[in-house]
Amino acid sequence: MAPQPNAAPSPFRSREERERDREEKREAVLRAAVRMFNARGFHATSLDDVAASLGISKPTIYHYLGNKEQVLIECVTRGLELLSAAADTARAQPGNGLARLRSVLRRYSLVMMDDFGRCVVRTGDEFLSAEGAALFRARKRAIDLSIRALIEDGIADGSIAPLDVRMTAFALAGALNWPGRWHEPDGPLSAEQIADSMVNILISGLAPRA
Amino acid sequence: MAPQPNAAPSPFRSREERERDREEKREAVLRAAVRMFNARGFHATSLDDVAASLGISKPTIYHYLGNKEQVLIECVTRGLELLSAAADTARAQPGNGLARLRSVLRRYSLVMMDDFGRCVVRTGDEFLSAEGAALFRARKRAIDLSIRALIEDGIADGSIAPLDVRMTAFALAGALNWPGRWHEPDGPLSAEQIADSMVNILISGLAPRA
Repeated sequence: MAPQPNAAPSPFRSREERERDREEKREAVLRAAVRMFNARGFHATSLDDVAASLGISKPTIYHYLGNKEQVLIECVTRGLELLSAAADTARAQPGNGLARLRSVLRRYSLVMMDDFGRCVVRTGDEFLSAEGAALFRARKRAIDLSIRALIEDGIADGSIAPLDVRMTAFALAGALNWPGRWHEPDGPLSAEQIADSMVNILISGLAPRA
Repeated sequence: MAPQPNAAPSPFRSREERERDREEKREAVLRAAVRMFNARGFHATSLDDVAASLGISKPTIYHYLGNKEQVLIECVTRGLELLSAAADTARAQPGNGLARLRSVLRRYSLVMMDDFGRCVVRTGDEFLSAEGAALFRARKRAIDLSIRALIEDGIADGSIAPLDVRMTAFALAGALNWPGRWHEPDGPLSAEQIADSMVNILISGLAPRA
């Protein structure tokens, strides 16, 4: 039913408004937590500090996200979802294997320099329960397999040299994960500049081309 | 003075023997600690566990190496010394810039898959005191500068394409640091195979050569 232009606004919020409000609050808590984990380290961060930074109480965080390990798993899951989306969107695009791989790598690199990607690279399996670590590994493996499939496409269509696919995927991911450890968002180089430069170096190699 | 062949062996150990003995014990403690940090994570490892694995007491570890942060700093320092040695030995060799860089990268990669290198890549600044983290960063910067100098040598002699030196050094180090996170020493591929394969991929790039 279309809204009636002359009706007075209802003092009660709709179900959609309440859900959107809840989602925004959950998102604000998650963003504050991931930034503090990245800046201080997971072990040195307490949910009390995260709560204080938002002017809320720790039970409010429990309400939206659960305990500290659950908050970390949510941050890492979000980062891995962004990486998966980067890989899968570009795979569906036109172009040869190398062109699509370039697009995937660029997006992957940008996610790795953003809050949730930085959290993925900073979170060792040892921070998680056995169950959390297994989930984490399975998702990383799916992303690795997407990148390998693109490399295989490129080798098949002749746009990528006949390399060892597994080692190539590891070398690419390693090079592009690393800025998540050292890149400072307010540093002199933008994430876009770093992503473009690194991807070009990895694709062209170091040896001069004839 | 030369040893006298007919003299009975002394029941007292020489100063050299006592020092060698002390050095061997210190080394055994350090090796046990670094392996446990790598396997379980720094925060989940207690010096009691390290001591128990060697059948010694925690005060014995304090005697040889100090408290848990001091043990970690010693492990990281050892790893960084091995990486520096890898960079500096190969720099002094003959050959063009690319050949010497290849040799450095191969050695660097092998250190990163060994106990102390794995500890370097697994230890975030947030595990260390401000003083320890500053020392750690200064040493990493020196290694980065060694690699950059080699890349500059190669660009100057024409063996390396005219790339952005800083980004190239970051891409190479990132790719070669990463196996320290995932390589299992008893896995199907040897560290040598991984090092050779990764270095070849990084030098040649992905795009086919004419």
